[in-house]
Amino acid sequence: MSFMPPTDSMFLLAESREHPMHVGGLQLFEPPEGSGPEFVRDMLEAFRSHEVSALFRRRPAEPVGSLGNTWWKVDDSLDHEYHVRHSAVPQPGRIRELLQLTSQWHGSLLDRHRPLWEAHVVEGLADGRIAVYSKIHHSMVDGVSALRLMQRSLSTDPEDRDCVPPWAVPTRAGTATPRKGFDPVGVLRAGAEAIGDVAGLVPASLRIATQVVRDGDVTLPRAPKTILNGPVGGARRFAAQSWEIERIRRVAKSSATTLNDVVLAMVSGALRQYLLELHALPDDPMTAMVPMSLSLRADTTGEEAAPGNATGAIVVNLATDREHGATRLEEIAYSSRQAKKIMGDLSPTQVLAFSALQMLPLALTPVPGFVTYTHPPFNVIISNVPGPKEPMYFNGARLDGMYPVSIVLDGQALNITLTSRDRYLDFGLIGCRRSVPHLQRLLTHLETSLAELEQAWG
Amino acid sequence: MSFMPPTDSMFLLAESREHPMHVGGLQLFEPPEGSGPEFVRDMLEAFRSHEVSALFRRRPAEPVGSLGNTWWKVDDSLDHEYHVRHSAVPQPGRIRELLQLTSQWHGSLLDRHRPLWEAHVVEGLADGRIAVYSKIHHSMVDGVSALRLMQRSLSTDPEDRDCVPPWAVPTRAGTATPRKGFDPVGVLRAGAEAIGDVAGLVPASLRIATQVVRDGDVTLPRAPKTILNGPVGGARRFAAQSWEIERIRRVAKSSATTLNDVVLAMVSGALRQYLLELHALPDDPMTAMVPMSLSLRADTTGEEAAPGNATGAIVVNLATDREHGATRLEEIAYSSRQAKKIMGDLSPTQVLAFSALQMLPLALTPVPGFVTYTHPPFNVIISNVPGPKEPMYFNGARLDGMYPVSIVLDGQALNITLTSRDRYLDFGLIGCRRSVPHLQRLLTHLETSLAELEQAWG
Repeated sequence: MSFMPPTDSMFLLAESREHPMHVGGLQLFEPPEGSGPEFVRDMLEAFRSHEVSALFRRRPAEPVGSLGNTWWKVDDSLDHEYHVRHSAVPQPGRIRELLQLTSQWHGSLLDRHRPLWEAHVVEGLADGRIAVYSKIHHSMVDGVSALRLMQRSLSTDPEDRDCVPPWAVPTRAGTATPRKGFDPVGVLRAGAEAIGDVAGLVPASLRIATQVVRDGDVTLPRAPKTILNGPVGGARRFAAQSWEIERIRRVAKSSATTLNDVVLAMVSGALRQYLLELHALPDDPMTAMVPMSLSLRADTTGEEAAPGNATGAIVVNLATDREHGATRLEEIAYSSRQAKKIMGDLSPTQVLAFSALQMLPLALTPVPGFVTYTHPPFNVIISNVPGPKEPMYFNGARLDGMYPVSIVLDGQALNITLTSRDRYLDFGLIGCRRSVPHLQRLLTHLETSLAELEQAWG
Repeated sequence: MSFMPPTDSMFLLAESREHPMHVGGLQLFEPPEGSGPEFVRDMLEAFRSHEVSALFRRRPAEPVGSLGNTWWKVDDSLDHEYHVRHSAVPQPGRIRELLQLTSQWHGSLLDRHRPLWEAHVVEGLADGRIAVYSKIHHSMVDGVSALRLMQRSLSTDPEDRDCVPPWAVPTRAGTATPRKGFDPVGVLRAGAEAIGDVAGLVPASLRIATQVVRDGDVTLPRAPKTILNGPVGGARRFAAQSWEIERIRRVAKSSATTLNDVVLAMVSGALRQYLLELHALPDDPMTAMVPMSLSLRADTTGEEAAPGNATGAIVVNLATDREHGATRLEEIAYSSRQAKKIMGDLSPTQVLAFSALQMLPLALTPVPGFVTYTHPPFNVIISNVPGPKEPMYFNGARLDGMYPVSIVLDGQALNITLTSRDRYLDFGLIGCRRSVPHLQRLLTHLETSLAELEQAWG
């Protein structure tokens, strides 16, 4: 047994029926030309036959869920058929049916008596593609690391037939959790334990924030209350779609903004339209929390990227009160520049402290009534995780989509996480099934929103 | 809102990730001749379009899970697509794949923010049949009532096209829970709350038991510790199969025992063989808890059946230490007769008290270490629930199997529940996926065991 650090165990402690603390991914694969129905079987066989790495054989030692320290135990009798499942979409086998299944799978809790991960190899799509949905508990690995493991299981060579699934990829750190420093989702709702951790940062953070505000560049936007910021239930709804990066890049170039700004503007326009239709658009502009890796910050300021992957977060004004896409993009770009400028002036430690301060209210969400009666620290979380830059393959099957499926929390009923893949941006939208009705409409609105920006800056 | 009586709420309070407190059923339907693939769609449509009865629109009011009283709230915005799901078995579409899916579905918790039930309409079986898996929380309805609702949704007329799903069947009692008096599964593990309830019965029960033992007919068998009687995990494994009632009746007739005795002997032989193969057969005979409705008791003694459906339970010696099937059947029949004789001498209240006493140790299972260090009150639960006596149809589709999917508990890792249907007995075996390995082998052993009895008494 090995000791489970609080940065891991807080995800077990904070988990409840309404707040599963696992992250997921939905991958689409195009089988190699000429392959028949046996390809699914072969893939399943490949997924089940490899030796599982130490990381994926760990499970929490009993007793689980008590408030004391918890330990990792290595499972020496892994039940491959349990962890890797064979599933099928019903007729007519569209992406829509696949997304419905994904919603169901993502809404159920992992069994704590086993290593905390599951995968489904899914057949039955009318277009012949194969889907793989996988989920892993946030106490075992964070979302970014999970996506990286997924990537490392793929090959750039379509002829390569020696691919291993993510759970068989050797991890450098052995049994240690590959957690990446400051973790936004972690602080967001880590229960009673984490409040103390975050509170410890307050004095330092306050000093920094005071400094920042005195410098007079910007005040932290105050997020309005929206339907996305109430308590959540246990059921989920998932939507996913890909967009060509080139379309977004063209808008960024002609508007002299960044790719990230254009993505935020896409989401802003989509949220505006979605909430207008539900008669629920707030008068005040909505805000988004955007996790930023320090290396991304380094890109902006020209500094050397810090080693490791410590992550901070900025809060950006989404300008959802503005009618025109072009205006929204301008305000977003301005707000984002200001936030990054502040970040750029801070040391990495200061960045973490400053980020923690902005998220402090969210750490209090386990307090009853807190979500219902207070303003949210921001309205939605939008994460952009870099993915592979070229076409990738698993034993000859081309990766045709890699949609992150993240976590929703009390007060944050919608999470949008995207990842780049080859020439595409793959958007994964996960929402509370009750608080975020008709989630799939956001996909249409995202397209409309991008088209409006293209027209304005074409 | 209406008050939720403790007999309902104890199932919510006792529930944990490892002990989902819902009961389920797996039905198989043979579509009417000449119907095409649209039949599944029509069935799904029929399932989703009917108005849902008051019983199936209730959900627990918040806060849920606290120790105080809980209330039922009526959900006025039921999400039909959430509750009635369209699913598919993967290739090659055998019953085996269906059972794997059923195991997964039965292992996940219901969402307490919604009425506590779900159904899956399942296509993709190679033989063209359609399956329906449904589950409902034990706080809403007990297993017997759930099976009755299922039956009432069916018709004896193959031409009838006005069938409504179980959740649209009008319930006589309005919003009241149709719970049937003393509930064996309820007492089995109702957590801290129930210990008091059961303990209250102890003085009366003890007096009765003392009386019984003094009369010298029988002593309560002491169940040996087996692999079926340890703590359970959250994952499940389900197996199901049908046997012709006539085969069992013939054995009962020539051996001058009852149908129930032969069923117990089938299970006894199967358990013996199963545990022998795992080198886990105890030296001492195993015992089974068999719920008995008072009306069944009345059949035996010739009394008038009591109104209502109050249920008691007897513990029967399974004689798993005996090598020959015929000997096992004899000992089972003797033990069963003795237990029923005692029951027959008691008033209905005494029956309940006596039954509660036999199950008292199980009510203590939430106490840590209790399951690990003490003898179980019995080794396995075997329930026989009467079903329809003729062929039944849903909108022309013939019911071709109706397998109960019950509850497993700490100390009771295997539950066997069967129901009669037309000329068949449909067995449903649910087990903890970890404690009961290779559960499906029990199906083969059940057949072998029956064949042995047929040979002995043919």
